[in-house]
Amino acid sequence: MARASTSDPTGLHRVLDDALVLPQAAQRLDTREELWPDEVRIRVEKLNLDAASFRQLERKHAGDGEQVRAEVLDIVSTRGKMQNPETGSGGMLVGTVEEVGPESTLGLSVGDRVATLVSLTLTPLVIQDGLSNWDGRGEQVPCDGYAVLFGRSIAAVIPDDLPADLSLSVMDVCGAPALTARVVADYAEPTVAVIGGGGKSGSLSLAAARQAGAGRLIGVVPHQAEADLLRATGLADEVVIADARDPIALRDAVKKAGGPADVTVVCVDVPGCEGGAILATAEQGTVIFFSMATSFSAAALGAEGLAADVKMIVGNGYVPGHAAYAMELLRTNEGVRNLFEGRL
Amino acid sequence: MARASTSDPTGLHRVLDDALVLPQAAQRLDTREELWPDEVRIRVEKLNLDAASFRQLERKHAGDGEQVRAEVLDIVSTRGKMQNPETGSGGMLVGTVEEVGPESTLGLSVGDRVATLVSLTLTPLVIQDGLSNWDGRGEQVPCDGYAVLFGRSIAAVIPDDLPADLSLSVMDVCGAPALTARVVADYAEPTVAVIGGGGKSGSLSLAAARQAGAGRLIGVVPHQAEADLLRATGLADEVVIADARDPIALRDAVKKAGGPADVTVVCVDVPGCEGGAILATAEQGTVIFFSMATSFSAAALGAEGLAADVKMIVGNGYVPGHAAYAMELLRTNEGVRNLFEGRL
Repeated sequence: MARASTSDPTGLHRVLDDALVLPQAAQRLDTREELWPDEVRIRVEKLNLDAASFRQLERKHAGDGEQVRAEVLDIVSTRGKMQNPETGSGGMLVGTVEEVGPESTLGLSVGDRVATLVSLTLTPLVIQDGLSNWDGRGEQVPCDGYAVLFGRSIAAVIPDDLPADLSLSVMDVCGAPALTARVVADYAEPTVAVIGGGGKSGSLSLAAARQAGAGRLIGVVPHQAEADLLRATGLADEVVIADARDPIALRDAVKKAGGPADVTVVCVDVPGCEGGAILATAEQGTVIFFSMATSFSAAALGAEGLAADVKMIVGNGYVPGHAAYAMELLRTNEGVRNLFEGRL
Repeated sequence: MARASTSDPTGLHRVLDDALVLPQAAQRLDTREELWPDEVRIRVEKLNLDAASFRQLERKHAGDGEQVRAEVLDIVSTRGKMQNPETGSGGMLVGTVEEVGPESTLGLSVGDRVATLVSLTLTPLVIQDGLSNWDGRGEQVPCDGYAVLFGRSIAAVIPDDLPADLSLSVMDVCGAPALTARVVADYAEPTVAVIGGGGKSGSLSLAAARQAGAGRLIGVVPHQAEADLLRATGLADEVVIADARDPIALRDAVKKAGGPADVTVVCVDVPGCEGGAILATAEQGTVIFFSMATSFSAAALGAEGLAADVKMIVGNGYVPGHAAYAMELLRTNEGVRNLFEGRL
């Protein structure tokens, strides 16, 4: 494919595949350092691998950090981006703005410390230190190198008033609370069930649902330790224990806690939660799937098979203002903050 | 797993897997002829295989009808239901009500000629004629055998005033127009783009969108012959040709026809249409995915990567009253009817 001479805000000009696909679907991206006029280059200091991706690599290499590191290096040099071929997911990165193209509209300045809020799966990336400061044993990857943002992209300046790690772990899941708030606001005092309510996106979604006018909040967690943790935060009115992969158990647990839910938010990264989420939801209710382990056909055929009149939403990680909103929830909500600090 | 003594409306009592899963996710269903009290048994006369499933079988066996038939028989006898292991999809069936359990709430009577509107992927099925009247060369499969409907299930009585084949091909896709109408009605005179507007679910969705108050209707089709066909029906205000897998071409085609769309409806059963559908949609617009070839992660990460503020809906095949609504569209809309009759 010939080199593109003009840039497209979606980053299409950096796709090296023969077929015309978007950067996220591409096998290989052009990582040239020189910018197109609407791009921004970031000096990378840290990669934050997607949890599902890191767990897959860890399992595959039986926890051998050397091998995990070698595979990450291999993926990035082969594809020009970090995209786990098995899970399809990437993660995010932190760094400092190194150069801003004259036509960039992202509002960034050289020297800004930023986190990218678009996935690594579509971000041109070059690693220049061989990841020598990473032992391959955690999702946080110290890294020297550079990455490129396109014309239509998102990066958030990291706030000064919070520890960087805390900000990052909030930004990583900031799409969930913003979208949850929007959906909850469409109902009058709805009952809201958050599956995985004790996790990062789950606890933020509970806080967002409360602020958006939820009537009753039900947090579903997998075991007693999580239940204790979530109860201590006061984020949910009811905390119940259920295996989200067991549809009948989930339905019954939510029902017992005051359900079915008008809005069910799925925040657990395990496959097979579609049926239970549908059954836990009232007629004319809404299910929001934030888990990357969601199967489209299991959701579509599952709802049909259950004759369930529910609206099912694909959790879009982008809602305008999502990072600032999530930060505000963390700043103003002690329960959320304690939970996040406890998980750092 | 021990035989269940009481039935669950979801059909859980017929799941033979060790793990507790819903019938759609099960490896194997119990096909015993005797009914639980809330069930209904149907004498099957025809199976209507899902198009994606039939095409996969045809490709796999290079069009050898004998082999296709043998594989369908093997799947049904092994799993107790028709679920293509590759595509995960099934289809629907037509038959006559043979027995109604005393606690059934489906409103059916013995002798009713019905089509099941739940997927074959969760319907206990026994084939008793070895499919001897089927040559393995088409999706319509003449079949003698029986099938079972659960307490919470859906079947529609086939109308007398329309040819049975016509009714069936409408019922097969009747979820799409009902959900499209709901979404369109949430906007004021929206621009609506239907990708695959010349197909069965696409043409019904165009008709539904018109009735629900769409301002401008754009039908997107893959080539000239489809464009001629769709133009002749008058269902769309603009008909444009674009490859839905090419995101930039799709975006540009819809834009040129008066887009971006407030509501984009994806009705084409090919993988890789997520990015184009997102790019063809206006900010705060909605994309409805009816295609079983949709990838959840491609949609979620794609929208995030494009910083696209769009709502994405999983096309639930069930909306109350969907079959009657689709039939009404066919009866009152000559364009839809001509198109369907032309495809029989």
